Amino acid sequence: MTAHGGSEIERLIQLLARLPGLGPRSARRAALQLIKRRESLMIPLAEAMGAAAAAIRVCSACGNIDVTDPCAICTDVRRDPALICVVEEVADLWALERAAVFAGRYHVLGGTLSALDGRGPEDLNIDTLVARAGAPAVTEVILATSATVEGQTTAHYIAERLNGARVSVTRLARGLPVGGELDYLDDGTIGAALKARREV
Amino acid sequence: MTAHGGSEIERLIQLLARLPGLGPRSARRAALQLIKRRESLMIPLAEAMGAAAAAIRVCSACGNIDVTDPCAICTDVRRDPALICVVEEVADLWALERAAVFAGRYHVLGGTLSALDGRGPEDLNIDTLVARAGAPAVTEVILATSATVEGQTTAHYIAERLNGARVSVTRLARGLPVGGELDYLDDGTIGAALKARREV
Repeated sequence: MTAHGGSEIERLIQLLARLPGLGPRSARRAALQLIKRRESLMIPLAEAMGAAAAAIRVCSACGNIDVTDPCAICTDVRRDPALICVVEEVADLWALERAAVFAGRYHVLGGTLSALDGRGPEDLNIDTLVARAGAPAVTEVILATSATVEGQTTAHYIAERLNGARVSVTRLARGLPVGGELDYLDDGTIGAALKARREV
Repeated sequence: MTAHGGSEIERLIQLLARLPGLGPRSARRAALQLIKRRESLMIPLAEAMGAAAAAIRVCSACGNIDVTDPCAICTDVRRDPALICVVEEVADLWALERAAVFAGRYHVLGGTLSALDGRGPEDLNIDTLVARAGAPAVTEVILATSATVEGQTTAHYIAERLNGARVSVTRLARGLPVGGELDYLDDGTIGAALKARREV
């Protein structure tokens, strides 16, 4: 016999523990919270998951997720079709949208190149990006991959692939994060900020 | 328009953020993980929640949750009916069961007395405990409430209520936790451990 009585509880805890950010202990707490708030939380969440599983599509143009294909961003006529911002994951697209600083369109790679994890160019949405970048309307591809070794390797690879296209290829600036104190920043960031210094 | 496209995604994130241990950021990550692993995680979890919501009962004897009422612990003939271990929440019962150190039965209060939160004796399963403690088979009630002010207030109140019964009322020992280094322990624990010192 397990400590948690019924197998329904056991299975709920096991599945919850597979969510990012929840370990075995917090999965147990989450399960108890769900059971305690059966009507107001557990049943609505089960229904929301079912509805999301049925409704959500991957945008065949950009790789974003939405309930329509193409997604709401790709079909939004107010957004500039000349700019494509390349991100690793949908989470990065969401972060840029929350910042509300970009009014072009996106391209979600689905990860980074990684020799260690055996992810090559064919595992990412790179061919579709090269095809999109060849469209006459597109003038600039912004590589917004992470400032990590893998993110930068991926950006370099894409820049090379786009060499023949008539688009300008840019990347996000390096420097101090807003609110960043020099004393707490890593050497790489300080070095990059110094190198990219600008006249005031 | 929200950053997350469809309202199904938005609603999923909002409900996930109400789980303990998940904030807005980790709820977004969890939602993306669910969407990414639609077949292997989102649909099974939705079904597990639905199954749990339908199956789970609160034990009318002890307040534990299980798929049967009375629960598997209350009906387990190998467990000693003479001992009742009183805990605040089902999570505490699970912790004791994981430790596998107690072979009696439980009584789940459903919280602690709290003047601040306006929880009085009538909000906890205390009357049913007093009734159970009056049964001839019961010889000892172990108060396993937390070593907090509210846990101890609750324990004192229950001890008083059980004053008339012929059961012995005990509480968990205070002392150093296993592996605890003096240097890292609070004064209260060190004081309690010293006061309850035993000959070796």
